[in-house]
Amino acid sequence: MAKAPILTPRADDFPRWYQDVLNKAELAENGPVRGTMVIRPYAYALWERMVAEVDARIKAAGADNAYFPLFIPESYLQREAEHVEGFSPELAVVTHGGGKQLEEPVVVRPTSETVIGEYMAKWVQSYRDLPLLLNQWANVVRWELRPRMFLRTSEFLWQEGHTAHVSEEDARVYAERILHDVYEDFMVNVLAIPVLTGRKIPEERFAGATNTLTCEAMMGDGKALQMGTSHELGQNFARAFDIAFSDETGERALAWTTSWGVSTRMMGGLIMAHGDDAGLVVPPRLAATQVVVLVVRDEDGTVTPAAQQMVDELAAVGVRAKLDAHTATAFGRRATNWELKGVPVRIEVGPRDLAEGRVVVVRRDVGEKVPTDLSAVVATVPGLLEDQQSALLAAATARRDSLTVECSTLDEAAEAAAHGFGQIAWDKVGADGIERLGRDAVTVRCLRTPEGGLPASDDAPGTLAIVARSY
Amino acid sequence: MAKAPILTPRADDFPRWYQDVLNKAELAENGPVRGTMVIRPYAYALWERMVAEVDARIKAAGADNAYFPLFIPESYLQREAEHVEGFSPELAVVTHGGGKQLEEPVVVRPTSETVIGEYMAKWVQSYRDLPLLLNQWANVVRWELRPRMFLRTSEFLWQEGHTAHVSEEDARVYAERILHDVYEDFMVNVLAIPVLTGRKIPEERFAGATNTLTCEAMMGDGKALQMGTSHELGQNFARAFDIAFSDETGERALAWTTSWGVSTRMMGGLIMAHGDDAGLVVPPRLAATQVVVLVVRDEDGTVTPAAQQMVDELAAVGVRAKLDAHTATAFGRRATNWELKGVPVRIEVGPRDLAEGRVVVVRRDVGEKVPTDLSAVVATVPGLLEDQQSALLAAATARRDSLTVECSTLDEAAEAAAHGFGQIAWDKVGADGIERLGRDAVTVRCLRTPEGGLPASDDAPGTLAIVARSY
Repeated sequence: MAKAPILTPRADDFPRWYQDVLNKAELAENGPVRGTMVIRPYAYALWERMVAEVDARIKAAGADNAYFPLFIPESYLQREAEHVEGFSPELAVVTHGGGKQLEEPVVVRPTSETVIGEYMAKWVQSYRDLPLLLNQWANVVRWELRPRMFLRTSEFLWQEGHTAHVSEEDARVYAERILHDVYEDFMVNVLAIPVLTGRKIPEERFAGATNTLTCEAMMGDGKALQMGTSHELGQNFARAFDIAFSDETGERALAWTTSWGVSTRMMGGLIMAHGDDAGLVVPPRLAATQVVVLVVRDEDGTVTPAAQQMVDELAAVGVRAKLDAHTATAFGRRATNWELKGVPVRIEVGPRDLAEGRVVVVRRDVGEKVPTDLSAVVATVPGLLEDQQSALLAAATARRDSLTVECSTLDEAAEAAAHGFGQIAWDKVGADGIERLGRDAVTVRCLRTPEGGLPASDDAPGTLAIVARSY
Repeated sequence: MAKAPILTPRADDFPRWYQDVLNKAELAENGPVRGTMVIRPYAYALWERMVAEVDARIKAAGADNAYFPLFIPESYLQREAEHVEGFSPELAVVTHGGGKQLEEPVVVRPTSETVIGEYMAKWVQSYRDLPLLLNQWANVVRWELRPRMFLRTSEFLWQEGHTAHVSEEDARVYAERILHDVYEDFMVNVLAIPVLTGRKIPEERFAGATNTLTCEAMMGDGKALQMGTSHELGQNFARAFDIAFSDETGERALAWTTSWGVSTRMMGGLIMAHGDDAGLVVPPRLAATQVVVLVVRDEDGTVTPAAQQMVDELAAVGVRAKLDAHTATAFGRRATNWELKGVPVRIEVGPRDLAEGRVVVVRRDVGEKVPTDLSAVVATVPGLLEDQQSALLAAATARRDSLTVECSTLDEAAEAAAHGFGQIAWDKVGADGIERLGRDAVTVRCLRTPEGGLPASDDAPGTLAIVARSY
């Protein structure tokens, strides 16, 4: 009788497979308050790696980290009409503090344009104070009616960048720089997820933005996931909070602001973009543990020191390696567990291997057990990791391309979106088309130029729409 | 006429000096909701350095980072009687979410023993699952009636460690390990603050703890600041949340837990421990910017490239260096500003200096301008930084020791605490003594053995009490 699979096969029930991975790989659990979640150590270590990589890119783009309060006066949100309309249904409201009812209720930040706008107004006086480039790593709260771990939770962790500029052009250039140099670069080159960058249609914009740029990824089931967004806010928040400066001629002018964010939602994207029926697959550049050295068994106590030495030698060449010498637990169970957790390379070391001067090396994506000379293994691993990184990106790109269909009618586009992405001329969609697609739960994920660039406006001629079902 | 000082002199009004430093060095501002604060980029960069240093030590102590929800059901807190009594007056309560009144109000975490206890109970089954060593970096909220930036704010940032062990002894050893190897080591060797470690008296324990260990520092005005605490929680939370395991004989037993934390309060300690009348003084090992290379002026455009080269060469030898070539702003103002911000070493480069093959090097603590050969400067700086690190610790230790008085009566102890710390035999204090000292706003900061160790109990013979006024 065949052993029951640990995970529901993706082809049988993708959402259940996702839930199984979260559970069996010990990534996350539901929190006690509906919609909240607990991020367990293995997943949190991946999030820390995401933070480190994104943070370095944000700093390279010139922004400074700061921290603004969790609590925002309700009145702040009301100053920007579209913003309050967009976020009101999702707010958590604190009405009591220190045992007393508060005079003015405060909201738990759903995002921080308003409170940061208030301080930008204080800190900006002259054009010399611009651009003002800020970022914060924080938790935010948006009450979710249909929560799903990592993808849509009532509390999530993210970074939110907020910048102010002297001109619309400067703001646009910076919002695009973040989209490409921070988000796209990180997602493609670290997460190995070939995101499509594009412009959101007006209906899908951030509440208060004049333009929202997005990174859209294809998941293992062909659906789209919005992985990160960068917004031009025009002068909407500058007007609401009076972020004004005296320009070079001494005239007073309103600043142009942007905001941009990525969140723990990327963890969901990571799982669903690369995961297979054996579990998570973590791209080597992201992995907190790139290599696990497994002691198969160790009756005479000689295997563990040899395995530890290998871990030390790997660390010395810059590989994030870890020892698993828990021989009290069956080897097969441990091997399956590391596979579930998606560690890129597994090195199995047993007494017989050592006697024969070799070990078994297994790449997570390929799965094949490759006997390798003990003397060659440390030199081999960095190349294996880079090969796997490239292979994951190539496989995800090939899958995305094979599941993206050029369409000439809305029916074709809806059909394409049943399995992947449809690409259709934007002028063939329009309000009626959006409604037609919506009947099949298909939405316009983004607009792109034929060359894959960002359209300059919502109605630039030749613009293509990418349509899909989405998370 | 002498120029008015930028900061209120410490001797005139220490609290106002503190406020001036926060303001003029652009460290922090009050948030819009009473008791909250905005941490500005320069201060946040220091906090990031604190986080990196403390986090590395926590990981070395074997704990894994994770993340638990901001929102905790009110009922969780009520399960541990002392805990709910201690925290109830400080809670922020969310009563509305997603536009509706919640069925059960949720509190914004003031600390996370309860919610983490709930999950520890799920994750611990056998003695093999112990110790369970968790930590999280998070924001917490405790409504403050008398807020003071960094020292007591309604929202603050911290790490909170939570561990479960098979025995009381294991829990005790781990709580002490965190106190010494993580907190004391970081505070002494990075912050250059010679903290006293000791045991809190029962009245000052964490709500729900059986023993609270503390790091107490002396500030520039002789007052004490509690910089970090590590708690033995006995089986109080294990009982409330059923954190139980089957031991080696198969018997069911309750775990023993600990919790421990340091927060953005350390920023207040940093400012008040080392700051002088010219501003903040940042110890080199902590500094996000260790050296600033200032272009004095640059009419012919040759000075800035030379200064940039120096920055690059310093970076190449591992020094965190930064260029200030904002020659549109007066040199004196910029020099004063870097002094205010406490950057450890300032290197001033002007055209005449360059022509003469030298620059001016200024150590923040000493203040003297030392002409240094251009060819020698990069090789000199690392030593200067280490010297300054040692000098700051030595100065803080000498000041603490000179302001610590051995006392034989409560009156002497109260008198000593008017200027610094009093040390008195604990058996001379007792309930009456606590009341007597309290009349002068003096409290017992901690109990220590005569050798400076941790007393094994509240009434161990020979125990000494450190008494002081405190923040």
